[in-house]
Order: sequence, then structure tokens, then C-alpha cells
Amino acid sequence: MSAKLIDFRTIRYHEGIVEILDQTLLPHSETYCTLRTLEEVAVAIEKMQVRGAPLIGVTAAYGVVLAMQKHASDAALGVAINRLSHTRPTAVNLHWALQSMRDVLECVPAEARLKAAQDRADAIFSQEVTVTEEIGMHGLALLRSMSAALPVPRELRVMTHCNPGKLGTPGLGTATAPLYLAQQEGLAVHAWVSETRPRWQGALTAWELSRSGVPHTVMVDNAAGHLLQRGLVDVVIVGADRITRRGDTANKIGTYLKAVAAKAHGVPFYVAVAGNTIDFTLNDGVAEIPIEQRQADEVLHAGNYFPFPAGTQARNDAFDVTPASWITGFITERGILRPEELESHFNPKP
Amino acid sequence: MSAKLIDFRTIRYHEGIVEILDQTLLPHSETYCTLRTLEEVAVAIEKMQVRGAPLIGVTAAYGVVLAMQKHASDAALGVAINRLSHTRPTAVNLHWALQSMRDVLECVPAEARLKAAQDRADAIFSQEVTVTEEIGMHGLALLRSMSAALPVPRELRVMTHCNPGKLGTPGLGTATAPLYLAQQEGLAVHAWVSETRPRWQGALTAWELSRSGVPHTVMVDNAAGHLLQRGLVDVVIVGADRITRRGDTANKIGTYLKAVAAKAHGVPFYVAVAGNTIDFTLNDGVAEIPIEQRQADEVLHAGNYFPFPAGTQARNDAFDVTPASWITGFITERGILRPEELESHFNPKP
Repeated sequence: MSAKLIDFRTIRYHEGIVEILDQTLLPHSETYCTLRTLEEVAVAIEKMQVRGAPLIGVTAAYGVVLAMQKHASDAALGVAINRLSHTRPTAVNLHWALQSMRDVLECVPAEARLKAAQDRADAIFSQEVTVTEEIGMHGLALLRSMSAALPVPRELRVMTHCNPGKLGTPGLGTATAPLYLAQQEGLAVHAWVSETRPRWQGALTAWELSRSGVPHTVMVDNAAGHLLQRGLVDVVIVGADRITRRGDTANKIGTYLKAVAAKAHGVPFYVAVAGNTIDFTLNDGVAEIPIEQRQADEVLHAGNYFPFPAGTQARNDAFDVTPASWITGFITERGILRPEELESHFNPKP
Repeated sequence: MSAKLIDFRTIRYHEGIVEILDQTLLPHSETYCTLRTLEEVAVAIEKMQVRGAPLIGVTAAYGVVLAMQKHASDAALGVAINRLSHTRPTAVNLHWALQSMRDVLECVPAEARLKAAQDRADAIFSQEVTVTEEIGMHGLALLRSMSAALPVPRELRVMTHCNPGKLGTPGLGTATAPLYLAQQEGLAVHAWVSETRPRWQGALTAWELSRSGVPHTVMVDNAAGHLLQRGLVDVVIVGADRITRRGDTANKIGTYLKAVAAKAHGVPFYVAVAGNTIDFTLNDGVAEIPIEQRQADEVLHAGNYFPFPAGTQARNDAFDVTPASWITGFITERGILRPEELESHFNPKP
């Protein structure tokens, strides 16, 4: 169903080489970049040449494959998983994917590890594609019902944040998946694309929506409250980097402001996410989810534009945490769930 | 008192010429620019070479002076006021200053108008300086009491937005005035400076705080909710461009998000403002205050950096409105007032 909607590949493993679309060069250059070693994969994740919680997980899995190509010993496996797990601290899919690789590879002898690693990484890739389709179907049903409930027919206005899109997954994206399916079936939608400082991931969202012809308008992050107040937003849908068992959600910095403003105006706020983004070892997201601190330079520069005085100090928290009480629901591969339903669907008691 | 604190001039009228600090070239170049005609003044306001509600008012007053230098007829006065009043729609100080000029000049014969215009514009300038000192004193008292109430002595953390500073007034600024006075008397403060997309006025705030040695850290606009949630902000103080009689406040886009998030965390949210920013002809700010729509280019470009795909659409509302119910109080030249006290202090019934 989604094959024709996936119009580019964010990552590919082929004949011992990982090829990634270098997202730091978008939207101006669509350049694929070749990774041949564990270290090259780790650096590509750190530099955000690949990004988005699901895609980070897939990329890390292929990083283990590259490591196994070189040495398939227990020690090499440990080194690879350790190196990759320290690339970015917040997204839990990274750890989920690495754990999944470890679980498989620890049970096979060294000589069978490369093949097993390839198979497992390919399976993670395929699973992530399928999950985005399922998220998309459940999200589409939500958009259909919201659209049908409009007093006057018009396009449904969906605000998003960052790039919870095709570029952040191997599939249709998380929050964007319902938009692509809506577009395909002719349900009128319009996306508000938040520019997402400091890394401008809104430009990535604009790029991929534009390729698929989904109508959208870019806004500064500052405009979210204003647009919500003026009744110009029907629903907010964001992605997530880590969710605790009670539903507290870490996502790109700025997400929390949108959740608070959405509630102030009675606009539903959804998180579109795969079950493997839920970290059932954590409960209180504000206290327990580690927040990545990135370089001040990302705040102080915009490309080669440097608007601040020399010597200016900046703080650069890459994520924030939206407590579950601000979240209307989670659009998952198993349907739309309230925060308190996550555990029974994804981590049922035996 | 403030003379030594005012370490640069944002505007000066001297021998028939208006000289302004060109704020579009800051922080990298401190360039003064000469305005000789009404039209040059109008364009400088439109291009935001001068900006900030109080400074826009003062600049417009000197624009009338330049017009009177050329022709002091009734018709020329009307043309000047009409041209200037259409430069920027939201800041009400512009209209206040122009009305003040008109009130004086309509009562004097043409041959006396230039002198009367100069005197009146100088008086507006001086009044604005004095008012910022008074706002600063009242704000300082607030900061002192908040600082004294801290359970453990540390610097008081003040979050601001845009540039409600020396650069936006001829004096100490509005929201920044208490910071400068605190710094002068040795009260420890630290400012969170919001970068303020799309025009980066946070860079102006960083520039002027840096000159005076007020400790500060720049953050992306997206980080406001996160910092409030983590207990890293003691008080939010912003400026204003127009306030209605019930206290609804138009200020730079993004202000409203900070107000909503501040309330979610019980952090007081103050608007530092002169009485002439209150428009007593309006009541419901969301319905009645005109919001300036600026060029999409300001959103899509950051200097010469252009992160978006060609053809991207953007919306650029320059201001938002924070309803009075989100505002703890107004720091004015007549003390700290609750929204419902504005009218009795600034527009008493006869």
C-alpha cells in the first residue's frame, strides 16, 4: 500500500555498505553518503546526517552489521553496541534496536553472526516500515472523523513539529503517515510546519511534504500559540523520541509548548509513535528521561549566519518532556490509545 | 540616575537631521544612519532599522519634525502624520506620539510649527527616558522581594522575549530596565534571552546586556516551556506593543506561548510597559488589536541562510495577543498594577 508513497530511501544496506541520505544537506542537495565502518555510522548519527528516533534505531542496527563484517567476536559485538549506544542519549529506539541485535547475536556462533546481523537489521527495517503504515491507517481514521465533524467542509489543519516524517523513519513517518494517506485518498488536509529551531527540521518536513504534494505552510516556532488561539489548528500531531510507561513523552524541544497551548484552546494533541519508542523501565519522564545537551553553536548559528555577539553563551537542550496529562492520545500501530492504555497494549502483565 | 547606564543612543535629533543606530546591522556593526526626510524616517521604521514600541513613537515624532522643516502647512502636517501612522500597525505608541504632535501643532501657526515640533518631540524623548527609569525602579523592587524570598541565595532568573530593551526605547528599556538597575546595585540576576525568530531580536538583547555586563544565556524560543518546567525561571518579564483597557497584551510573536507555559508552572508573568502603550479605545485584544503580517521571507531566510525548499509558503504574524487572564501584572511607571487596575491609573473617569 505504501510502496508508491515511499518516494525515496533514507537508508539502504547493500553489499557490505550502508548508504544514507545525508539529511544535513537537505533540502538543497539530495546526496547519498556511504558508511563502511562502525565509527562512520556512529558519527553519522551524532552529526544528525541520519535522525529521527526510528531511523536512528535502524541505522544503529546496520552499524552492528558493519562491525560484524570486520570482526564477529563477542568483544567486537560489545564494542559496537557500546559505541552506538552512546551516540544520542534521548531516543530509546536506539537502545531497543541494539538490544534486539544483541539478543539475536549472542545466541549464534561468531561465524554465523554476520548473516544473522544482516537478517535481523533487515527485519528491523521492514518492521519499522510496516509500523508506520499501521500508524498511518489509525491516524487517517482519526483525521477522517475529525474532518466529517467540521461544521463546514474545508481542509483539516494539522500542526506538527520537527520532522516526524519519512526522513525520520524508513517508512511513511509517524506523525506524517496519516497526512500521506489522507492525501492519497483525497481527504483535504493542510499541515502547519514548525520551523523547529535550532536544527530547522521543519525544512525537512517541508521538503518531503512538498515532494508528495501535501499542502503546508511553514511558521516560526513562536507562532504556535497564536495559530491555536485564532482557531487555525484542528489537531496537533507530533512524534516522540522516548515515552515512559505512564505516557510522559520526550520529543524535540518546543513540543511541550505546543501541548500546553493546545490544551489552553481545547485542541487535541496526539503523539504518533511506534510501541518500541516506549521505555517501560521509566515512569516519570521529567525526572527520568535523559535530555541531550548539544553544542551552543547550533543555537548561535543559522548555517553561516551568526546573529549573536561574539562570546554569547547559549543553552541547547535538544528535547523536552510533555507529561502524559497534556496528551490526548497516542496514535500507534495498535490503534489510538490513551496514556494509561499503553502498558496493557505494549507491555502486558504475563 | 540612569545617565551612566545609558551607554549608547538609539536616536538623536541634531541640526535638522535625525540620526539612528541602525539595528538591522547589530550586533556586528554599530552604525549610525542619517535620516533627512519624512520618507526616510517612515522607511527606517518599516524596515525595522528602528524598532520597539517606545522608540517607534519617538522616531515618528522626529519624522514630523523633518516634515515641518520642509513644509509647515496644515496639508504637510496631515501628510506626515498619515504616512507615519501607516508604517507599522500594531504598536500603539506610534499613534500616541503622532496624536501628541498633532495636538500641539494644530494649535500653533505654520511659522511657529518647526520650533513647536522640535520641542514636543524632545519632550516625548525625555518623557520616554524618564518612564523607563520609573519602570526600572518598580521592577527592581519586585526583583528585590523575589530575590529575598528565595530559599537559598542565588541569582534571580528572569526570562524575557524579543528586545524590550535600551534598543527599543530611548532609555533603559522596559523589561530590561529592572535588570540594569539590579546589576547596578549588586542584586544578582541572570537573564534567559529568547532568540526571537524570525527577526532575532534576542541578539539585540544579548548585545545590550553584554555591554552592561548583565549575565545572560541565549536559548531557542522552543526552550521556554522546558526551562519553566525544570524550575530554571523565577519570573518572565516581557514588553508590549499595545495593551487594551482590560489588559490584553499584543507583543512579539511567541510571547503568548511563554505566558501559557509560565502559568502552567506557577511562574509569575509580568509585562513591563509605559502607560502610553495602553489603547483605551480597545477592550478585547484578540478581536480588536491589528496584527502585522510581514513578508514570508523573514521566516524562510536567516540572513543569507535559506534552509527551506524553493517555493515554500510561510506565514509571518509579527505579534500575538496574550489575554489579561494570563498576566500576573504590569510593571508601569506608576507601580505594579493588576490588569483591572490599568484604567483607574491611566485613564481615570473624570
